[in-house]
Amino acid sequence: MSVTDELLVNAERYAASFDQGHLPLPPAKGVAVLACMDARLNVYGLLGLREGDAHVIRNAGGVVTADERRSLAISQRLLGTREIILIHHTDCGMLTFTDDAFKEGIRAETGIKPDWSAEAFADLEEDVVQSVARIKADPFIPHRDAVRGFIYEVETGRLREVKA
Amino acid sequence: MSVTDELLVNAERYAASFDQGHLPLPPAKGVAVLACMDARLNVYGLLGLREGDAHVIRNAGGVVTADERRSLAISQRLLGTREIILIHHTDCGMLTFTDDAFKEGIRAETGIKPDWSAEAFADLEEDVVQSVARIKADPFIPHRDAVRGFIYEVETGRLREVKA
Repeated sequence: MSVTDELLVNAERYAASFDQGHLPLPPAKGVAVLACMDARLNVYGLLGLREGDAHVIRNAGGVVTADERRSLAISQRLLGTREIILIHHTDCGMLTFTDDAFKEGIRAETGIKPDWSAEAFADLEEDVVQSVARIKADPFIPHRDAVRGFIYEVETGRLREVKA
Repeated sequence: MSVTDELLVNAERYAASFDQGHLPLPPAKGVAVLACMDARLNVYGLLGLREGDAHVIRNAGGVVTADERRSLAISQRLLGTREIILIHHTDCGMLTFTDDAFKEGIRAETGIKPDWSAEAFADLEEDVVQSVARIKADPFIPHRDAVRGFIYEVETGRLREVKA
């Protein structure tokens, strides 16, 4: 039995106890969360979110590339969110390598160099500041006055704000 | 009090009851989930995930662009995941507009046309098939034999598989 099959059993249990009725498409709390994909960062649990509350956007590092700017533009323009919470975390995998080395390793193995930046970073706080700045500089995201950046501490479960 | 401030109170409660000890960086279940950012799709709840179990990658639509390929490459190459679960869902916002109209609206308002595709789609099942195909065609993602696509039904809480 694959891990996927195992998780599908959980999904059947979720459906069996499903009693939410009809929830509307726009997030009830009008907020979008952009966070790292890290397995230890449970965005719903941490922020006390429930089904229907918030958009959750995640990727390796919680970085801001064209695709996150796309998701945030859609979130605000079509679905009415107004606040953005950005979350990086301690002990992040993105701190353990460099773009050059990662891409060179892939080139050596596959013969092709990736057409993307790996978005590795060396300083956690600085990358939160950078990511918030990328959002605030984006002309396609209409609401940029409530964008705040945080670091989640995987060791303590604490969320602390990073001030620019 | 902003919504962000309200969620920070929840985060303090989470930290106060935090008792996970040290969880390792690589996901315990060796799986990466790629899903839509939709507020009604609670990936942890649906799949029964706990802190430390799985990478969770999310964006508007649960689509596969360069940034998702980057996250999946990092997930597998640096952090050892081997299976991929892709989840779209019914009543998705991406079914309600077209790329051309969305980008033209932004151009009319800001004077600048976005440098990204909005990735809207007209057929839900077909986009799951497309997204799985994009992953399977990616030369930088090493493990592509366990990639499965699903549609989450926001009306029933049920997860159903889409076969290519």
